[in-house]
Amino acid sequence: MKRAQLVKAIREKKSVLCVGLDTDITKIPQHLFAEEDPVFAFNKAIIDATKDYTVAYKLNTAFYEAQGVKGWISMGKTLDYIPKDIFTIADAKRGDIGNTAEQYAKTFFQTYPFDSVTVAPYMGEDSVKPFMQHDGNWAIVLGLTSNAGSADFQLQNSGDMLLYERVLKTVAGWGTPENTMFVIGATRKEQLKHVRDLLPAHFFLIPGVGAQGGDVDTVCGAAMNGDGGVLINVSRGVIYAGNDADFAKRAGEAAKEYQQQMAAYL
Amino acid sequence: MKRAQLVKAIREKKSVLCVGLDTDITKIPQHLFAEEDPVFAFNKAIIDATKDYTVAYKLNTAFYEAQGVKGWISMGKTLDYIPKDIFTIADAKRGDIGNTAEQYAKTFFQTYPFDSVTVAPYMGEDSVKPFMQHDGNWAIVLGLTSNAGSADFQLQNSGDMLLYERVLKTVAGWGTPENTMFVIGATRKEQLKHVRDLLPAHFFLIPGVGAQGGDVDTVCGAAMNGDGGVLINVSRGVIYAGNDADFAKRAGEAAKEYQQQMAAYL
Repeated sequence: MKRAQLVKAIREKKSVLCVGLDTDITKIPQHLFAEEDPVFAFNKAIIDATKDYTVAYKLNTAFYEAQGVKGWISMGKTLDYIPKDIFTIADAKRGDIGNTAEQYAKTFFQTYPFDSVTVAPYMGEDSVKPFMQHDGNWAIVLGLTSNAGSADFQLQNSGDMLLYERVLKTVAGWGTPENTMFVIGATRKEQLKHVRDLLPAHFFLIPGVGAQGGDVDTVCGAAMNGDGGVLINVSRGVIYAGNDADFAKRAGEAAKEYQQQMAAYL
Repeated sequence: MKRAQLVKAIREKKSVLCVGLDTDITKIPQHLFAEEDPVFAFNKAIIDATKDYTVAYKLNTAFYEAQGVKGWISMGKTLDYIPKDIFTIADAKRGDIGNTAEQYAKTFFQTYPFDSVTVAPYMGEDSVKPFMQHDGNWAIVLGLTSNAGSADFQLQNSGDMLLYERVLKTVAGWGTPENTMFVIGATRKEQLKHVRDLLPAHFFLIPGVGAQGGDVDTVCGAAMNGDGGVLINVSRGVIYAGNDADFAKRAGEAAKEYQQQMAAYL
Protein backbone atom coordinates (compact mmCIF):
# COMPACT_ATOMS: atom_id res chain seq x y z
CA MET A 1 0.00 0.00 0.00
CA LYS A 2 1.30 3.41 -0.93
CA ARG A 3 1.47 6.29 1.53
CA ALA A 4 -1.31 8.22 -0.24
CA GLN A 5 -3.74 5.34 0.29
CA LEU A 6 -2.83 5.04 3.95
CA VAL A 7 -3.26 8.77 4.48
CA LYS A 8 -6.64 8.65 2.70
CA ALA A 9 -7.81 5.87 5.02
CA ILE A 10 -6.65 7.83 8.06
CA ARG A 11 -8.63 10.89 6.94
CA GLU A 12 -11.76 8.97 6.00
CA LYS A 13 -11.90 6.86 9.15
CA LYS A 14 -10.53 9.63 11.38
CA SER A 15 -8.36 6.98 12.95
CA VAL A 16 -4.70 6.06 13.35
CA LEU A 17 -5.57 2.86 15.19
CA CYS A 18 -3.57 -0.28 14.48
CA VAL A 19 -4.98 -3.38 16.11
CA GLY A 20 -2.34 -5.89 17.13
CA LEU A 21 -3.40 -9.45 16.39
CA ASP A 22 -0.93 -10.95 18.89
CA THR A 23 -3.28 -13.86 19.23
CA ASP A 24 -2.19 -16.15 22.06
CA ILE A 25 -3.93 -19.51 21.78
CA THR A 26 -3.95 -19.82 25.57
CA LYS A 27 -5.93 -16.59 25.95
CA ILE A 28 -8.81 -16.93 23.48
CA PRO A 29 -12.35 -17.80 24.61
CA GLN A 30 -12.99 -21.49 25.24
CA HIS A 31 -15.95 -21.81 22.86
CA LEU A 32 -13.64 -21.14 19.88
CA PHE A 33 -11.91 -24.48 20.38
CA ALA A 34 -14.92 -26.08 18.71
CA GLU A 35 -13.73 -24.42 15.48
CA GLU A 36 -11.31 -26.10 13.08
CA ASP A 37 -8.83 -23.20 13.40
CA PRO A 38 -9.52 -21.41 16.69
CA VAL A 39 -6.87 -18.72 16.15
CA PHE A 40 -8.28 -17.79 12.75
CA ALA A 41 -11.85 -17.90 14.08
CA PHE A 42 -10.80 -15.46 16.81
CA ASN A 43 -8.99 -13.15 14.38
CA LYS A 44 -11.87 -13.22 11.89
CA ALA A 45 -14.36 -12.15 14.55
CA ILE A 46 -12.00 -9.43 15.82
CA ILE A 47 -11.44 -8.11 12.28
CA ASP A 48 -15.19 -8.04 11.56
CA ALA A 49 -15.82 -6.11 14.77
CA THR A 50 -12.94 -3.62 14.52
CA LYS A 51 -12.34 -2.96 10.81
CA ASP A 52 -14.45 0.22 10.68
CA TYR A 53 -12.28 1.87 13.34
CA THR A 54 -8.91 0.57 12.24
CA VAL A 55 -6.45 1.65 9.54
CA ALA A 56 -3.90 -1.11 10.17
CA TYR A 57 -3.56 -4.63 11.57
CA LYS A 58 -0.27 -5.84 12.99
CA LEU A 59 0.35 -9.57 13.28
CA ASN A 60 3.04 -10.42 15.82
CA THR A 61 4.56 -13.38 14.01
CA ALA A 62 6.00 -14.95 17.20
CA PHE A 63 2.54 -16.00 18.38
CA TYR A 64 1.94 -17.80 15.07
CA GLU A 65 5.44 -19.29 14.76
CA ALA A 66 5.16 -20.81 18.23
CA GLN A 67 2.30 -22.96 16.89
CA GLY A 68 4.46 -24.31 14.05
CA VAL A 69 2.87 -25.14 10.70
CA LYS A 70 -0.65 -24.67 12.12
CA GLY A 71 0.30 -21.15 13.17
CA TRP A 72 1.60 -20.18 9.73
CA ILE A 73 -1.65 -21.46 8.23
CA SER A 74 -3.66 -19.33 10.68
CA MET A 75 -1.45 -16.34 9.86
CA GLY A 76 -1.93 -16.75 6.11
CA LYS A 77 -5.72 -17.07 6.44
CA THR A 78 -5.87 -14.03 8.71
CA LEU A 79 -3.80 -11.90 6.33
CA ASP A 80 -6.01 -12.98 3.46
CA TYR A 81 -9.16 -12.02 5.40
CA ILE A 82 -8.06 -8.46 6.19
CA PRO A 83 -9.82 -5.98 3.85
CA LYS A 84 -7.39 -4.79 1.14
CA ASP A 85 -7.84 -1.11 2.07
CA ILE A 86 -6.36 -1.71 5.54
CA PHE A 87 -2.57 -1.54 5.97
CA THR A 88 -0.94 -4.77 7.17
CA ILE A 89 2.19 -5.20 9.27
CA ALA A 90 4.20 -8.37 9.83
CA ASP A 91 5.70 -7.65 13.23
CA ALA A 92 8.59 -10.02 12.71
CA LYS A 93 11.63 -7.88 13.62
CA ARG A 94 13.85 -9.63 11.11
CA GLY A 95 17.43 -8.57 10.37
CA ASP A 96 20.22 -10.43 8.60
CA ILE A 97 22.81 -9.92 5.86
CA GLY A 98 21.86 -9.18 2.26
CA ASN A 99 21.06 -12.56 0.70
CA THR A 100 19.18 -13.64 3.83
CA ALA A 101 17.33 -10.32 4.10
CA GLU A 102 16.15 -10.89 0.52
CA GLN A 103 14.63 -14.19 1.66
CA TYR A 104 12.84 -12.46 4.54
CA ALA A 105 11.55 -9.79 2.14
CA LYS A 106 10.25 -12.60 -0.05
CA THR A 107 8.60 -14.22 3.00
CA PHE A 108 6.68 -11.13 4.08
CA PHE A 109 6.08 -9.32 0.79
CA GLN A 110 5.39 -12.28 -1.52
CA THR A 111 4.76 -15.62 0.21
CA TYR A 112 2.69 -13.75 2.80
CA PRO A 113 1.80 -10.48 1.04
CA PHE A 114 1.94 -7.99 3.92
CA ASP A 115 2.34 -4.29 3.20
CA SER A 116 5.20 -3.96 5.67
CA VAL A 117 7.55 -5.78 8.02
CA THR A 118 9.33 -4.67 11.18
CA VAL A 119 13.12 -4.82 10.89
CA ALA A 120 15.96 -4.72 13.44
CA PRO A 121 18.78 -2.29 12.56
CA TYR A 122 21.81 -3.82 14.35
CA MET A 123 23.38 -5.32 11.22
CA GLY A 124 23.22 -2.08 9.24
CA GLU A 125 22.42 -0.96 5.72
CA ASP A 126 22.64 -4.21 3.76
CA SER A 127 20.30 -5.86 6.29
CA VAL A 128 17.64 -3.13 5.96
CA LYS A 129 17.68 -1.95 2.34
CA PRO A 130 16.28 -5.17 0.84
CA PHE A 131 13.00 -4.27 2.57
CA MET A 132 12.92 -0.81 0.93
CA GLN A 133 13.11 -1.97 -2.66
CA HIS A 134 9.61 -3.26 -3.33
CA ASP A 135 7.10 -0.74 -4.62
CA GLY A 136 4.29 -0.25 -2.13
CA ASN A 137 6.05 -2.22 0.62
CA TRP A 138 7.57 -0.72 3.74
CA ALA A 139 10.39 -1.38 6.20
CA ILE A 140 9.35 -0.43 9.72
CA VAL A 141 12.69 -0.15 11.50
CA LEU A 142 13.15 -0.39 15.26
CA GLY A 143 14.13 3.04 16.55
CA LEU A 144 13.24 3.46 20.18
CA THR A 145 11.40 0.67 21.98
CA SER A 146 9.25 0.92 25.08
CA ASN A 147 10.68 -1.97 27.09
CA ALA A 148 13.08 -1.69 30.02
CA GLY A 149 15.88 -3.16 27.91
CA SER A 150 15.84 -0.11 25.62
CA ALA A 151 18.19 1.47 28.17
CA ASP A 152 20.87 -1.18 27.57
CA PHE A 153 21.91 -0.05 24.08
CA GLN A 154 19.38 2.30 22.43
CA LEU A 155 19.75 4.97 25.11
CA GLN A 156 23.55 4.73 25.33
CA ASN A 157 25.73 7.41 23.81
CA SER A 158 26.77 6.83 20.22
CA GLY A 159 29.34 9.52 19.47
CA ASP A 160 27.60 12.88 19.96
CA MET A 161 24.08 11.44 20.11
CA LEU A 162 22.20 8.45 21.51
CA LEU A 163 22.21 5.15 19.61
CA TYR A 164 18.50 5.30 18.73
CA GLU A 165 19.01 8.84 17.37
CA ARG A 166 21.87 7.57 15.20
CA VAL A 167 19.64 4.74 13.98
CA LEU A 168 16.81 7.14 13.06
CA LYS A 169 19.14 9.56 11.32
CA THR A 170 21.12 6.91 9.46
CA VAL A 171 18.22 4.69 8.40
CA ALA A 172 16.16 7.67 7.23
CA GLY A 173 18.96 8.32 4.73
CA TRP A 174 18.62 4.83 3.23
CA GLY A 175 14.95 5.10 2.31
CA THR A 176 12.21 7.69 2.01
CA PRO A 177 9.05 8.56 3.98
CA GLU A 178 7.25 6.56 1.25
CA ASN A 179 8.87 3.24 2.15
CA THR A 180 10.28 3.64 5.67
CA MET A 181 8.58 3.94 9.05
CA PHE A 182 10.06 3.65 12.53
CA VAL A 183 8.96 1.85 15.67
CA ILE A 184 8.87 4.52 18.36
CA GLY A 185 7.83 3.02 21.66
CA ALA A 186 7.77 6.31 23.48
CA THR A 187 5.14 7.11 26.04
CA ARG A 188 6.47 10.46 27.28
CA LYS A 189 5.49 13.72 25.58
CA GLU A 190 9.00 15.22 25.44
CA GLN A 191 10.47 12.08 23.91
CA LEU A 192 7.73 11.91 21.25
CA LYS A 193 8.14 15.59 20.38
CA HIS A 194 11.90 15.12 20.12
CA VAL A 195 11.57 12.21 17.70
CA ARG A 196 9.04 14.13 15.61
CA ASP A 197 11.45 17.06 15.44
CA LEU A 198 14.19 14.72 14.21
CA LEU A 199 11.95 13.20 11.52
CA PRO A 200 9.08 15.51 10.54
CA ALA A 201 7.78 13.47 7.60
CA HIS A 202 8.02 9.79 8.55
CA PHE A 203 5.27 7.60 9.90
CA PHE A 204 5.89 6.12 13.35
CA LEU A 205 4.46 2.83 14.54
CA ILE A 206 3.78 3.47 18.20
CA PRO A 207 3.21 0.50 20.48
CA GLY A 208 2.90 0.83 24.22
CA VAL A 209 -0.59 2.32 24.43
CA GLY A 210 -2.97 0.45 26.74
CA ALA A 211 -1.40 -2.52 28.50
CA GLN A 212 2.06 -0.95 28.21
CA GLY A 213 1.07 2.38 29.80
CA GLY A 214 0.96 5.02 27.06
CA ASP A 215 -2.09 7.10 26.23
CA VAL A 216 -3.66 8.27 22.97
CA ASP A 217 -3.86 11.97 23.83
CA THR A 218 -0.16 12.21 24.64
CA VAL A 219 0.85 10.42 21.44
CA CYS A 220 -1.52 12.31 19.13
CA GLY A 221 -0.69 15.66 20.71
CA ALA A 222 3.06 15.21 20.51
CA ALA A 223 3.78 13.01 17.51
CA MET A 224 1.21 13.55 14.74
CA ASN A 225 2.05 15.44 11.57
CA GLY A 226 -0.10 16.76 8.71
CA ASP A 227 -0.67 13.26 7.30
CA GLY A 228 -1.46 11.72 10.65
CA GLY A 229 2.04 10.33 10.70
CA VAL A 230 1.49 7.77 13.43
CA LEU A 231 -0.03 4.34 13.69
CA ILE A 232 -0.92 3.71 17.31
CA ASN A 233 -0.91 0.02 18.03
CA VAL A 234 -3.14 -1.50 20.67
CA SER A 235 -3.06 -5.26 21.09
CA ARG A 236 -4.32 -6.63 24.40
CA GLY A 237 -6.45 -3.54 25.12
CA VAL A 238 -8.61 -4.37 22.10
CA ILE A 239 -8.41 -8.09 21.37
CA TYR A 240 -8.80 -9.19 24.99
CA ALA A 241 -11.32 -6.47 25.96
CA GLY A 242 -13.73 -9.37 26.61
CA ASN A 243 -13.19 -13.08 27.09
CA ASP A 244 -16.68 -14.55 26.74
CA ALA A 245 -19.17 -15.14 23.93
CA ASP A 246 -19.30 -11.37 23.37
CA PHE A 247 -15.49 -10.97 23.02
CA ALA A 248 -15.72 -9.56 19.49
CA LYS A 249 -18.39 -7.04 20.42
CA ARG A 250 -16.25 -5.89 23.34
CA ALA A 251 -13.21 -5.60 21.07
CA GLY A 252 -15.26 -3.50 18.63
CA GLU A 253 -16.35 -1.20 21.45
CA ALA A 254 -12.76 -0.81 22.66
CA ALA A 255 -11.55 -0.06 19.12
CA LYS A 256 -14.34 2.50 18.65
CA GLU A 257 -13.38 4.20 21.89
CA TYR A 258 -9.76 4.52 20.78
CA GLN A 259 -10.89 5.77 17.35
CA GLN A 260 -13.07 8.45 18.91
CA GLN A 261 -10.18 9.74 21.01
CA MET A 262 -8.06 9.89 17.83
CA ALA A 263 -10.78 11.64 15.78
CA ALA A 264 -10.37 14.78 17.88
CA TYR A 265 -6.88 15.19 16.40
CA LEU A 266 -7.71 14.45 12.74
CA MET B 1 22.73 -29.84 24.49
CA LYS B 2 24.99 -28.94 27.37
CA ARG B 3 28.43 -27.45 26.90
CA ALA B 4 30.22 -30.61 28.10
CA GLN B 5 28.56 -32.66 25.35
CA LEU B 6 29.50 -30.15 22.71
CA VAL B 7 33.11 -30.06 23.89
CA LYS B 8 33.21 -33.87 23.92
CA ALA B 9 32.03 -33.97 20.30
CA ILE B 10 34.63 -31.38 19.30
CA ARG B 11 37.42 -33.46 20.86
CA GLU B 12 36.21 -36.77 19.44
CA LYS B 13 35.66 -35.52 15.91
CA LYS B 14 38.59 -33.09 16.01
CA SER B 15 36.29 -30.58 14.38
CA VAL B 16 34.63 -27.25 15.07
CA LEU B 17 32.79 -27.33 11.76
CA CYS B 18 29.22 -26.10 11.60
CA VAL B 19 27.52 -26.75 8.29
CA GLY B 20 25.01 -24.08 7.33
CA LEU B 21 21.88 -25.60 5.79
CA ASP B 22 20.87 -22.33 4.09
CA THR B 23 19.11 -24.40 1.50
CA ASP B 24 17.93 -22.23 -1.39
CA ILE B 25 15.34 -24.10 -3.46
CA THR B 26 16.57 -22.33 -6.60
CA LYS B 27 20.11 -23.69 -6.13
CA ILE B 28 19.63 -27.41 -5.50
CA PRO B 29 20.28 -30.04 -8.19
CA GLN B 30 17.46 -30.51 -10.69
CA HIS B 31 17.07 -34.25 -10.14
CA LEU B 32 15.84 -33.62 -6.58
CA PHE B 33 12.63 -32.07 -7.86
CA ALA B 34 11.40 -35.60 -8.53
CA GLU B 35 11.25 -35.99 -4.71
CA GLU B 36 8.16 -35.10 -2.70
CA ASP B 37 10.14 -32.61 -0.58
CA PRO B 38 13.21 -31.54 -2.59
CA VAL B 39 14.63 -29.32 0.18
CA PHE B 40 14.46 -32.12 2.73
CA ALA B 41 15.88 -34.62 0.23
CA PHE B 42 18.81 -32.26 -0.33
CA ASN B 43 19.39 -31.68 3.39
CA LYS B 44 19.13 -35.40 4.18
CA ALA B 45 21.80 -36.25 1.62
CA ILE B 46 24.04 -33.41 2.87
CA ILE B 47 23.65 -34.54 6.48
CA ASP B 48 24.45 -38.15 5.62
CA ALA B 49 27.59 -37.07 3.77
CA THR B 50 28.89 -34.50 6.29
CA LYS B 51 27.84 -35.70 9.74
CA ASP B 52 31.14 -37.42 10.55
CA TYR B 53 33.05 -34.16 10.10
CA THR B 54 30.55 -31.81 11.66
CA VAL B 55 29.75 -30.86 15.26
CA ALA B 56 26.87 -28.50 14.45
CA TYR B 57 24.25 -27.74 11.82
CA LYS B 58 22.85 -24.25 11.41
CA LEU B 59 19.52 -23.79 9.65
CA ASN B 60 19.04 -20.28 8.30
CA THR B 61 15.30 -19.98 8.91
CA ALA B 62 14.80 -17.29 6.23
CA PHE B 63 15.29 -19.83 3.44
CA TYR B 64 12.57 -22.04 4.93
CA GLU B 65 10.18 -19.20 5.85
CA ALA B 66 10.29 -17.87 2.28
CA GLN B 67 8.67 -21.15 1.18
CA GLY B 68 5.76 -20.71 3.60
CA VAL B 69 4.16 -23.74 5.23
CA LYS B 70 6.08 -26.14 2.94
CA GLY B 71 9.33 -24.59 4.18
CA TRP B 72 8.47 -25.04 7.84
CA ILE B 73 7.64 -28.67 7.14
CA SER B 74 11.04 -29.15 5.44
CA MET B 75 12.73 -27.42 8.38
CA GLY B 76 11.00 -29.65 10.93
CA LYS B 77 11.90 -32.83 9.04
CA THR B 78 15.51 -31.69 8.65
CA LEU B 79 15.86 -30.90 12.34
CA ASP B 80 14.38 -34.25 13.22
CA TYR B 81 16.85 -36.02 10.92
CA ILE B 82 19.99 -34.48 12.44
CA PRO B 83 21.72 -36.99 14.78
CA LYS B 84 21.03 -36.08 18.42
CA ASP B 85 24.74 -35.80 19.27
CA ILE B 86 25.19 -32.90 16.85
CA PHE B 87 24.48 -29.35 18.06
CA THR B 88 21.66 -27.55 16.23
CA ILE B 89 21.26 -23.83 15.61
CA ALA B 90 18.14 -21.99 14.44
CA ASP B 91 19.71 -19.01 12.72
CA ALA B 92 16.63 -16.86 13.12
CA LYS B 93 18.04 -13.64 14.63
CA ARG B 94 14.91 -12.99 16.64
CA GLY B 95 14.56 -10.15 19.13
CA ASP B 96 11.46 -8.66 20.74
CA ILE B 97 10.11 -7.65 24.14
CA GLY B 98 9.59 -10.14 26.96
CA ASN B 99 6.25 -11.82 26.26
CA THR B 100 7.05 -12.04 22.54
CA ALA B 101 10.57 -13.33 23.18
CA GLU B 102 8.97 -16.10 25.26
CA GLN B 103 6.95 -17.10 22.18
CA TYR B 104 10.09 -17.18 20.06
CA ALA B 105 11.84 -19.29 22.69
CA LYS B 106 8.87 -21.65 22.56
CA THR B 107 9.12 -21.75 18.75
CA PHE B 108 12.78 -22.71 18.62
CA PHE B 109 13.22 -24.70 21.84
CA GLN B 110 9.91 -26.59 21.95
CA THR B 111 7.84 -26.52 18.75
CA TYR B 112 11.08 -26.99 16.80
CA PRO B 113 13.49 -28.40 19.40
CA PHE B 114 16.77 -26.76 18.38
CA ASP B 115 19.63 -26.53 20.87
CA SER B 116 20.10 -22.82 20.22
CA VAL B 117 18.79 -19.77 18.43
CA THR B 118 20.52 -16.64 17.17
CA VAL B 119 19.24 -13.46 18.82
CA ALA B 120 19.54 -9.73 17.99
CA PRO B 121 20.55 -7.53 20.95
CA TYR B 122 19.10 -4.11 20.01
CA MET B 123 16.10 -4.32 22.37
CA GLY B 124 18.21 -5.21 25.41
CA GLU B 125 18.02 -7.52 28.39
CA ASP B 126 14.33 -8.46 28.45
CA SER B 127 14.53 -9.39 24.75
CA VAL B 128 17.52 -11.73 25.27
CA LYS B 129 17.12 -13.34 28.70
CA PRO B 130 14.08 -15.48 27.78
CA PHE B 131 16.45 -17.48 25.57
CA MET B 132 18.85 -18.12 28.48
CA GLN B 133 16.35 -19.74 30.81
CA HIS B 134 15.93 -23.21 29.35
CA ASP B 135 18.32 -25.87 30.57
CA GLY B 136 20.52 -27.12 27.74
CA ASN B 137 19.39 -24.38 25.34
CA TRP B 138 21.51 -21.48 24.19
CA ALA B 139 21.14 -17.88 23.08
CA ILE B 140 23.65 -17.04 20.35
CA VAL B 141 23.69 -13.26 20.40
CA LEU B 142 24.83 -11.06 17.52
CA GLY B 143 28.07 -9.40 18.53
CA LEU B 144 30.12 -8.43 15.52
CA THR B 145 28.89 -9.34 12.05
CA SER B 146 30.94 -9.72 8.87
CA ASN B 147 28.80 -7.69 6.48
CA ALA B 148 29.55 -4.17 5.26
CA GLY B 149 26.65 -2.81 7.34
CA SER B 150 28.42 -3.75 10.58
CA ALA B 151 30.18 -0.37 10.24
CA ASP B 152 26.89 1.53 10.51
CA PHE B 153 26.22 0.85 14.19
CA GLN B 154 28.32 -2.02 15.61
CA LEU B 155 31.61 -0.26 14.93
CA GLN B 156 30.44 3.16 16.14
CA ASN B 157 31.57 4.50 19.48
CA SER B 158 29.37 3.66 22.44
CA GLY B 159 30.71 5.74 25.31
CA ASP B 160 34.33 4.63 25.85
CA MET B 161 34.10 1.53 23.66
CA LEU B 162 32.54 0.39 20.38
CA LEU B 163 28.92 -0.71 20.31
CA TYR B 164 29.73 -4.38 19.61
CA GLU B 165 32.14 -4.36 22.56
CA ARG B 166 29.40 -2.97 24.79
CA VAL B 167 27.04 -5.67 23.53
CA LEU B 168 29.56 -8.44 24.27
CA LYS B 169 30.36 -7.09 27.72
CA THR B 170 26.75 -6.40 28.69
CA VAL B 171 25.17 -9.57 27.33
CA ALA B 172 27.90 -11.76 28.85
CA GLY B 173 26.71 -10.46 32.23
CA TRP B 174 23.15 -11.69 31.62
CA GLY B 175 24.04 -15.32 31.02
CA THR B 176 26.92 -17.72 31.41
CA PRO B 177 29.34 -19.50 29.03
CA GLU B 178 27.01 -22.50 29.52
CA ASN B 179 24.00 -20.84 27.85
CA THR B 180 25.35 -17.92 25.84
CA MET B 181 27.42 -17.77 22.65
CA PHE B 182 28.14 -14.84 20.37
CA VAL B 183 28.10 -14.42 16.61
CA ILE B 184 31.53 -13.06 15.74
CA GLY B 185 31.79 -12.49 12.01
CA ALA B 186 35.41 -11.47 12.13
CA THR B 187 37.85 -12.50 9.45
CA ARG B 188 40.90 -10.53 10.61
CA LYS B 189 43.35 -12.01 13.12
CA GLU B 190 43.66 -8.92 15.35
CA GLN B 191 39.90 -8.55 15.62
CA LEU B 192 39.47 -12.22 16.54
CA LYS B 193 42.24 -12.05 19.15
CA HIS B 194 40.69 -8.91 20.61
CA VAL B 195 37.27 -10.52 20.98
CA ARG B 196 38.82 -13.64 22.54
CA ASP B 197 40.67 -11.41 25.04
CA LEU B 198 37.36 -9.76 25.96
CA LEU B 199 35.58 -13.09 26.47
CA PRO B 200 38.02 -15.93 27.21
CA ALA B 201 35.42 -18.59 28.03
CA HIS B 202 32.51 -18.15 25.62
CA PHE B 203 31.88 -20.06 22.43
CA PHE B 204 31.78 -17.95 19.27
CA LEU B 205 29.77 -18.84 16.20
CA ILE B 206 31.96 -17.66 13.35
CA PRO B 207 30.41 -17.25 9.92
CA GLY B 208 32.26 -15.71 7.02
CA VAL B 209 34.60 -18.60 6.19
CA GLY B 210 34.53 -19.70 2.55
CA ALA B 211 32.17 -17.67 0.35
CA GLN B 212 32.48 -14.66 2.70
CA GLY B 213 36.31 -14.58 2.63
CA GLY B 214 37.58 -15.82 6.02
CA ASP B 215 39.91 -18.78 6.46
CA VAL B 216 40.09 -21.61 8.97
CA ASP B 217 43.73 -21.16 10.00
CA THR B 218 43.23 -17.51 10.92
CA VAL B 219 40.12 -18.27 12.96
CA CYS B 220 41.52 -21.31 14.75
CA GLY B 221 44.85 -19.64 15.45
CA ALA B 222 43.34 -16.46 16.86
CA ALA B 223 40.03 -17.41 18.46
CA MET B 224 40.12 -20.94 19.88
CA ASN B 225 40.28 -21.61 23.60
CA GLY B 226 40.90 -24.78 25.64
CA ASP B 227 37.44 -26.15 24.84
CA GLY B 228 37.64 -25.35 21.15
CA GLY B 229 35.47 -22.34 21.84
CA VAL B 230 34.46 -21.67 18.26
CA LEU B 231 31.97 -23.09 15.82
CA ILE B 232 33.10 -22.19 12.32
CA ASN B 233 30.15 -22.06 9.99
CA VAL B 234 30.48 -22.84 6.32
CA SER B 235 27.33 -22.83 4.21
CA ARG B 236 27.77 -22.42 0.46
CA GLY B 237 31.36 -23.75 0.54
CA VAL B 238 30.03 -27.13 1.67
CA ILE B 239 26.44 -27.53 0.54
CA TYR B 240 27.01 -26.22 -2.98
CA ALA B 241 30.46 -27.80 -3.43
CA GLY B 242 28.85 -29.77 -6.26
CA ASN B 243 25.63 -29.31 -8.20
CA ASP B 244 25.16 -32.63 -10.00
CA ALA B 245 24.23 -36.19 -9.07
CA ASP B 246 27.33 -36.33 -6.86
CA PHE B 247 26.49 -33.14 -4.91
CA ALA B 248 26.41 -34.94 -1.56
CA LYS B 249 29.73 -36.69 -2.13
CA ARG B 250 31.29 -33.35 -3.03
CA ALA B 251 29.81 -31.75 0.09
CA GLY B 252 31.25 -34.57 2.20
CA GLU B 253 34.68 -34.04 0.66
CA ALA B 254 34.51 -30.30 1.31
CA ALA B 255 33.44 -30.88 4.92
CA LYS B 256 36.26 -33.39 5.42
CA GLU B 257 38.79 -30.91 4.07
CA TYR B 258 37.64 -28.24 6.52
CA GLN B 259 37.68 -30.79 9.36
CA GLN B 260 41.24 -31.79 8.56
CA GLN B 261 42.41 -28.18 8.66
CA MET B 262 40.71 -27.83 12.06
CA ALA B 263 42.17 -31.08 13.44
CA ALA B 264 45.63 -29.52 13.46
CA TYR B 265 44.44 -27.15 16.20
CA LEU B 266 42.59 -29.67 18.37
